[in-house]
Amino acid sequence: MKKIVNDPESVVQDMLDGLISAHPDSLQLLPETTVVVRKDAPITNKVSIVSGGGSGHEPAHAGYIGDGMLDAAVCGEMFTSPTPDQVFESIKAVDGGAGVFLVIKNYTGDVMNFEMAAELAEAEGIQVEKVIVNDDVAVEDSSFTTGRRGIAGTIFVHKIAGAKAAAGGSIEEVKSVAEKVVANVRSMGMALTPCTVPAAGKPSFTLEENEMEIGTGIHGEPGIERKPIASASAIAEELTDKILEDIKFNSGDDVAVMINGMGATPEMELYILNKKVNQMLTDRGLTIHKTFVGDYMTSLEMAGCSITLLKLDDELKTLLDAESSAPAFRI
Amino acid sequence: MKKIVNDPESVVQDMLDGLISAHPDSLQLLPETTVVVRKDAPITNKVSIVSGGGSGHEPAHAGYIGDGMLDAAVCGEMFTSPTPDQVFESIKAVDGGAGVFLVIKNYTGDVMNFEMAAELAEAEGIQVEKVIVNDDVAVEDSSFTTGRRGIAGTIFVHKIAGAKAAAGGSIEEVKSVAEKVVANVRSMGMALTPCTVPAAGKPSFTLEENEMEIGTGIHGEPGIERKPIASASAIAEELTDKILEDIKFNSGDDVAVMINGMGATPEMELYILNKKVNQMLTDRGLTIHKTFVGDYMTSLEMAGCSITLLKLDDELKTLLDAESSAPAFRI
Repeated sequence: MKKIVNDPESVVQDMLDGLISAHPDSLQLLPETTVVVRKDAPITNKVSIVSGGGSGHEPAHAGYIGDGMLDAAVCGEMFTSPTPDQVFESIKAVDGGAGVFLVIKNYTGDVMNFEMAAELAEAEGIQVEKVIVNDDVAVEDSSFTTGRRGIAGTIFVHKIAGAKAAAGGSIEEVKSVAEKVVANVRSMGMALTPCTVPAAGKPSFTLEENEMEIGTGIHGEPGIERKPIASASAIAEELTDKILEDIKFNSGDDVAVMINGMGATPEMELYILNKKVNQMLTDRGLTIHKTFVGDYMTSLEMAGCSITLLKLDDELKTLLDAESSAPAFRI
Repeated sequence: MKKIVNDPESVVQDMLDGLISAHPDSLQLLPETTVVVRKDAPITNKVSIVSGGGSGHEPAHAGYIGDGMLDAAVCGEMFTSPTPDQVFESIKAVDGGAGVFLVIKNYTGDVMNFEMAAELAEAEGIQVEKVIVNDDVAVEDSSFTTGRRGIAGTIFVHKIAGAKAAAGGSIEEVKSVAEKVVANVRSMGMALTPCTVPAAGKPSFTLEENEMEIGTGIHGEPGIERKPIASASAIAEELTDKILEDIKFNSGDDVAVMINGMGATPEMELYILNKKVNQMLTDRGLTIHKTFVGDYMTSLEMAGCSITLLKLDDELKTLLDAESSAPAFRI
């Protein structure tokens, strides 16, 4: 196992300590938790946005804490949902009286634990609403999921719900716009190599030297098909076509694009993918409003990518373009 | 070779096309070159900053083009210096009458080609000055270098020279502050795995399953020592100690820290490294002014890291903190 770690059992805590030391003015760790909260929380009368999930997807989710985005990120163990009590702690820490909005990726454990935490918080008089993100068009139901998985499209939900909250939106308005994002965002990924959870010490699956997998999840969950590695253009085409089959775009529609690296993909390759995706969308008469290329929702050192398209209306454009001070998503 | 590419011979051009499509409002490609220039160049009466070098180090250097940072990046072929005529084209494109300042990493090819371009430009009446960055303390002389190599510390030179130019500094003032950065910045790296140049199709070197190399360069040039993989803390300590032996810090000094990933290193591991580096510097009584953790100067899909320390005075702090709109270095 080629990793830069100390004790494989303490990677999440070590990472969080290193994260807080890098951003001591903007982030804090709630004592005896793995919950990262903005330093100035709670913000009175602002709806607070909380997300999180298993670790190993960095910069998701703690890198998205900042003005105009998340108020807290609940960091589970590696690829493992955070516990309800950790989520509950995060809700209590950020509630400024206007309620707390949860952005949950659609994994059975996450949904269950965030919902239990919501009930605990509501019992204490905190208003909690949520959205479940299920942007991955690859497969219905999967290793850890009933329905579709939540992957990189989640970042657009963070951004837009966060901007709505920062602009003074009520919790109902934040929920409404977050649901609009979920209804209009689709993603699909692929992998060239597996990744290794430090405590496991060996890869979560294997791929042959010339093999790729289309539709792989961000925990290495099975995709649709394994086949010989295709060209960047063919990969871009396959993923984008599958997305475009699932959501109707008309000529003239505005779209935001995310070309996401899974952790070990050189940025060069992501830009090569973007060339083709851009051509495909432009050929269909779509207007590309903004393109994000980089590692946004990773799977440790997996080599591979995902493509995300978000159909935009004027409200979503304005909120996507609004300022964000989050370290991993500055606008 | 597990890569998302089309023709291995056209990766740089394909990448640049994808880059420009992602940032059409801020970046442009000079026709028939691999020179990326800010869209609003030339800026009258501002000193322009040009950098570049071989490709494969993304986001270096084109990701650093923006207000307060670079005006152009000259992108060579993979790990290959750009030609003098390409550098010359970039200088002509960005000169706004106040001169052009070149930030060159210390590789023999880069130094020679950028200097030849400077002579061509001066012959046309453009004032050109330069700085050569040699922050890597690992080795003296190397595969492509006489003296020390230029690595991730170069990003601090871009940022601070760029901020000085944006603030209206003369070319002499830009040169002076860039030289101050070079005098005060030190880096050192290590590798867990090699990387593969697409057209070569095979790794540039090999490391055993449990082996790491200390002091490796950003093109896989040999380092100091190969040995069994150590803990994150031991790696952080070895690299940081070597840097601190080379530049004197006193208790109370301000320092900027960069924990740079080589391309395939999960962000989690970089933060784990930062935890230890932060402790070491704090224990010495240093004040950590800012910490940058991420992929800033990569080596394709190499797994590994580098650590950079920059000793700061008030002028450098102000310039480091100044706004930047560069996609890969927003402040």
